[in-house]
Amino acid sequence: MASPSRIGAVTSSVVSSKFRRVYITTLKSVAAILALRNGGGVPMIDPRDRPPANSHRRVVIDAIRPNVDDGKHPIKRVIGDRLLVEADLLVDGHDRLAGVVAYRRKGSLEWLETPLSPAAGAPREVDAAAVQAPDDRWCGELVLDAIGQWEYTVIAWVDSWASWTWGLRRKVAAGQSVDIDLRGGASLVAAAAERTSADAAVDRVALRRVEQLLREGPDTGARIATALAAETGALMRAHADRDGATTYDPPFIVVVDPPRARFSSWYEMFPRSCGSNGKHGTFRDAEDRLPYIAEMGFDVVYLPPIHPIGRRHRKGPDNSLTASPGDPGSPWAVGDAAGGHCSVHPELGTLEDFRSFVRAAREHGLDVALDIAFQASPDHPWVGEHPEWFVRRADGSIQYAENPPKRYQDIYPFDFTGPARDSLWLELRAVFSHWIAQGVMIFRVDNPHTKPIPFWSWCIGTLKERHPELIFLAEAFTRPKIMYGLAKAGFSLSYTYFAWRTSKAELTDYVRSLVNTEVREYFRPSFWPNTPDILPEHLQLGTRATFIARAVLAATLSPSWGIYGPPFELQEQKARPGAEEYAGNEKYQLRSWDLSSPHSLRPVLRRLNQIRRDNPALQRLEGTVFHETDNDLLICYSRQSEIDGEASTLLVVVNLDPHHSHSGWLSLDLNALGLSPEAGFQVHDLISDARYLWKGSRAFVTLDPAAMPAHIFRVRRHVRSERTFEYYL
Amino acid sequence: MASPSRIGAVTSSVVSSKFRRVYITTLKSVAAILALRNGGGVPMIDPRDRPPANSHRRVVIDAIRPNVDDGKHPIKRVIGDRLLVEADLLVDGHDRLAGVVAYRRKGSLEWLETPLSPAAGAPREVDAAAVQAPDDRWCGELVLDAIGQWEYTVIAWVDSWASWTWGLRRKVAAGQSVDIDLRGGASLVAAAAERTSADAAVDRVALRRVEQLLREGPDTGARIATALAAETGALMRAHADRDGATTYDPPFIVVVDPPRARFSSWYEMFPRSCGSNGKHGTFRDAEDRLPYIAEMGFDVVYLPPIHPIGRRHRKGPDNSLTASPGDPGSPWAVGDAAGGHCSVHPELGTLEDFRSFVRAAREHGLDVALDIAFQASPDHPWVGEHPEWFVRRADGSIQYAENPPKRYQDIYPFDFTGPARDSLWLELRAVFSHWIAQGVMIFRVDNPHTKPIPFWSWCIGTLKERHPELIFLAEAFTRPKIMYGLAKAGFSLSYTYFAWRTSKAELTDYVRSLVNTEVREYFRPSFWPNTPDILPEHLQLGTRATFIARAVLAATLSPSWGIYGPPFELQEQKARPGAEEYAGNEKYQLRSWDLSSPHSLRPVLRRLNQIRRDNPALQRLEGTVFHETDNDLLICYSRQSEIDGEASTLLVVVNLDPHHSHSGWLSLDLNALGLSPEAGFQVHDLISDARYLWKGSRAFVTLDPAAMPAHIFRVRRHVRSERTFEYYL
Repeated sequence: MASPSRIGAVTSSVVSSKFRRVYITTLKSVAAILALRNGGGVPMIDPRDRPPANSHRRVVIDAIRPNVDDGKHPIKRVIGDRLLVEADLLVDGHDRLAGVVAYRRKGSLEWLETPLSPAAGAPREVDAAAVQAPDDRWCGELVLDAIGQWEYTVIAWVDSWASWTWGLRRKVAAGQSVDIDLRGGASLVAAAAERTSADAAVDRVALRRVEQLLREGPDTGARIATALAAETGALMRAHADRDGATTYDPPFIVVVDPPRARFSSWYEMFPRSCGSNGKHGTFRDAEDRLPYIAEMGFDVVYLPPIHPIGRRHRKGPDNSLTASPGDPGSPWAVGDAAGGHCSVHPELGTLEDFRSFVRAAREHGLDVALDIAFQASPDHPWVGEHPEWFVRRADGSIQYAENPPKRYQDIYPFDFTGPARDSLWLELRAVFSHWIAQGVMIFRVDNPHTKPIPFWSWCIGTLKERHPELIFLAEAFTRPKIMYGLAKAGFSLSYTYFAWRTSKAELTDYVRSLVNTEVREYFRPSFWPNTPDILPEHLQLGTRATFIARAVLAATLSPSWGIYGPPFELQEQKARPGAEEYAGNEKYQLRSWDLSSPHSLRPVLRRLNQIRRDNPALQRLEGTVFHETDNDLLICYSRQSEIDGEASTLLVVVNLDPHHSHSGWLSLDLNALGLSPEAGFQVHDLISDARYLWKGSRAFVTLDPAAMPAHIFRVRRHVRSERTFEYYL
Repeated sequence: MASPSRIGAVTSSVVSSKFRRVYITTLKSVAAILALRNGGGVPMIDPRDRPPANSHRRVVIDAIRPNVDDGKHPIKRVIGDRLLVEADLLVDGHDRLAGVVAYRRKGSLEWLETPLSPAAGAPREVDAAAVQAPDDRWCGELVLDAIGQWEYTVIAWVDSWASWTWGLRRKVAAGQSVDIDLRGGASLVAAAAERTSADAAVDRVALRRVEQLLREGPDTGARIATALAAETGALMRAHADRDGATTYDPPFIVVVDPPRARFSSWYEMFPRSCGSNGKHGTFRDAEDRLPYIAEMGFDVVYLPPIHPIGRRHRKGPDNSLTASPGDPGSPWAVGDAAGGHCSVHPELGTLEDFRSFVRAAREHGLDVALDIAFQASPDHPWVGEHPEWFVRRADGSIQYAENPPKRYQDIYPFDFTGPARDSLWLELRAVFSHWIAQGVMIFRVDNPHTKPIPFWSWCIGTLKERHPELIFLAEAFTRPKIMYGLAKAGFSLSYTYFAWRTSKAELTDYVRSLVNTEVREYFRPSFWPNTPDILPEHLQLGTRATFIARAVLAATLSPSWGIYGPPFELQEQKARPGAEEYAGNEKYQLRSWDLSSPHSLRPVLRRLNQIRRDNPALQRLEGTVFHETDNDLLICYSRQSEIDGEASTLLVVVNLDPHHSHSGWLSLDLNALGLSPEAGFQVHDLISDARYLWKGSRAFVTLDPAAMPAHIFRVRRHVRSERTFEYYL
């Protein structure tokens, strides 16, 4: 460790204000201070150190979950979700507590409330002490029924009535005299009557009557019965004394997104390859492709950048440095004389054609996702109009992208933190606004990790204030914490390492890192077996079964998944030698694909997407559990979710070896599946439609990749009797 | 879940101010907004949503550790500790980062700095990318060399010079032309020269010279050499561009306590039992007991309340409801006509006698800890002077303590949240101030969990502002989260469940819950085998070995431990039938003890406390590791700590069966012990002085409780050669 160095006065907003504060010291507190019999030379307590104004608030609220970084970032949910909020409520002594989760849509002045009760597993009543929640853990649940930001927090107070009745019950049981206690209870009721609002006159009358009965009831038994009556309890709860209530502040935020921010099936394609006879495709051609995509069950069609493509330093086929005159260039080299980020490549059509494409997609149940790549080709209009948005080299030229020693002279990055950053940021955000105005609500953002995280916080944050239904997918393949940082900054979904996680151990560890940690509160994965940039080795060397297995894994391990087609369904395997990249990559050239090939995975993909739609368990990440198998080439996992009391349980087994048949024993975690060891259960393969009757935790499976490398079982519990159960078979 | 109920406008400080804020919109940004080609009916972005003022700060600082609840409560350390601060530093792209831990004593205007470097395990340089810390984790260490509150935070920035030299190196290696780059570097150096302060004229000249060499050096090789020279790097680091630095705000707080807040050996005794011939003991008599206590190696002598004792409802022997005239009563029934919490029981002597006792104790290296019990006997002067500090029953009488159906009519609790709470809180704090003035710096607080947690936050917080050296021990035997809540509120030390954790599994789980979780940052345990309230069953039924084993466990598992003597060292086992309480309890009567009994554990306790003093590993909790044994009655654990590069390693084995000899194999976690599987090592039993030469992870032990139920080994690594090592044997 280097020795500490003294530095000049560093600005800090945290100079304690305690010494500057001036209190109006009352005579009474001065008297109390003087009562201090100060015997030695010890400095006296500063009389300004008065007890805090909220010193009557005894309840401490702690460890509210869920949250991200103690509320620095919002948690994420989708519309319709139930949000279970948990908190520790701590109080001194034996008193009983009550509390609520308070919540509201951000901006609303009115808070809603849902009561807190002891958290699951904690018995409601522990007779040995007044503790309602033995581990001091409470919970309350609310429904997020609108898209947008919501606030939630916890309010808790000492429930003086419940504390009093608890004591009364125990004294009565011990045969003690409770006359004075009942008079004390009457005072509590009188105070509640005082608290009733003008529109609760009925309650006020009722409380006055209870008070009278407690004071002057016909006999002690009747007075006790009145005190403990359910109606009395309800009245006292309705007019509880919240004067000493503690409110956790500031509240936490939950971003409520549309369902596709979590559960979506993406199909990426190049519209320019949709033309016939090798011609440059148009949006009109792409429209014709929509039924094909929709029929496979996808719900998001994602297009690479659709803007004019730069000409200077244009890349030729397979990323070669020189392009021939006919080469179309990379769509990620954005901008030429025809326009930049708000323009449409003339060969694709017009802005109106694009809007028509968006409308047609919607008619097929598809949202259009647009690729936003914040970088400019040397021919982008902004290079001339806004040279201040770019970094200049020492020779006055504009700095091209580089990752030394690699140079990308066809790409100019923006100077996000330079002196002109304000106008640049505004203009970049305006790019989103422009496409939102064309009907686009989903954006796939190219390389967001090479732009400042604070830019995304601001850009996405302010856009979603106006358009809370927006969805942003981060195309970041970088270190985990940067990816998580982008998710915290506001991205709804993120690409993942799935493409490179192939073994049972890798897949298990990776999914667990997303499901079993706080990461699940803000980072939503999207699993892609391939992209135009990624043709992983196992797809190059695999079989048809490899493609199916990867699709099954992606589609069942992650609620959001996607493929780059048609190469995926056509099982394109040809790679640029030595690279995990497609040969003849569509990024740099037009390709035409034989969609009618009998070899196509179309039917399999359709089945997979149908299974995803039919089974709520596949529509969220929670509840993913891996089960042991005695064969490392067989991976087994389940996902269970309960919607309105109805359990949806899927159990998946995949053979990771595309060449050989594998058998093995599964050791099922019956608890995770909600099954008892005694009762049989049915597993129904949703791919083959075969049904099996299993019992207990051990089950034997065989998967032949030449036939089908995976089971996707729906698990059906034995509901009523063996007879009913057989009926299902 | 109950359906949400609408409630009236709840006060909240969190109405977003965004809509109220008014920005001065520059013409330029208006132009940028107008450039938005808004095609549809989508609302425009509000032009007031400008980029934030700090939009040039690219580095995001996250996950700073250690902290408690993200800084809501301070972490705790003792003077002399090194504090290792870790943080994630996230930045877009490939740039290199630099950062510091900034820290200062609270109230100081000047921040100190210690540099951040990649966290342990992360290679300094990963050539594949510009990433310095592959997991984005950084750390810096500082020394806390004064008692009191300190602030710490992290500042980080893009190191433009390091980023530039990194690129330069790679371009040079690839044989690329770097002429323009060198001119860019010269500009960076020129900017650094501009930043030099007036008192760094030498550096300014040096930087100007470097700039010139970079621009006009004799040849490219010399220019590159200048750029990459260590001196250039040092100059550029000294004058780094921190304009875009991110400072994590607000800073975290660490409370730095005196060493005994963590490492202390307590001896509790009743001074009134120190008299001879059955007479009521005095402080003078207690002074005579000090050499006996000091000789056993204790460093804190703790006295139950020393105030006048109430007479009304006074308890007789063994907590009986009626006292005979000669019965002294319980010291916890505080106050009678002679005075209250600031007075001394007349039979113990005078305030001056007490001060003399404190001085005498100090001369023996002992601190005096005083028991503060915030409750009053019915005879306490405050009952008459301040009836407003007590709760009244419906019949006008003062509410005594109760836990229905139990009644404690000799005790009046205070009304901590009643209308007179302000004056009560001030007066209670003044009680501490009074005893501080008599020289007491350590307080053992009776039943703090029956007083509001916010009271303790305020009371301890404001007292420690004046007297940062104060130590507060919480006598809270209640639910874990309440105990943790009190520690977060400011208690330095806490009683624990140790007295009831007896099996290997119980001890292991309990210690792990304190060591391996965030709890260690704020909750400091004190392990007590017995107290006047607790004579656990295993001590009642055990043997001498039980007492020794419990002392060894307490003294080696927790840096702070204590006993209630003389009953502990004399192995008093007689309990009130059916209770885990002493028969003839000193709480209610005088006892005289035969301190010279040959049976006494005095020598064992002396040895134990000596071992604790000699071995830094026992003076802190961190580094506790449990090792497997194949016999459940043998528990084995180690603690390792490194002070100034010197490792202190203790390995403890205890036979938990006081009746039978037990043998077994240990499976040592050599990694945790800092040992290699190949090299032999010496274990030196600090109790018996026996030495053994072990090798590898397996070792065999036998412990006969009739002789000694524990080994406390100092582990000595094989330092130089086998020969040197043999010398140690």
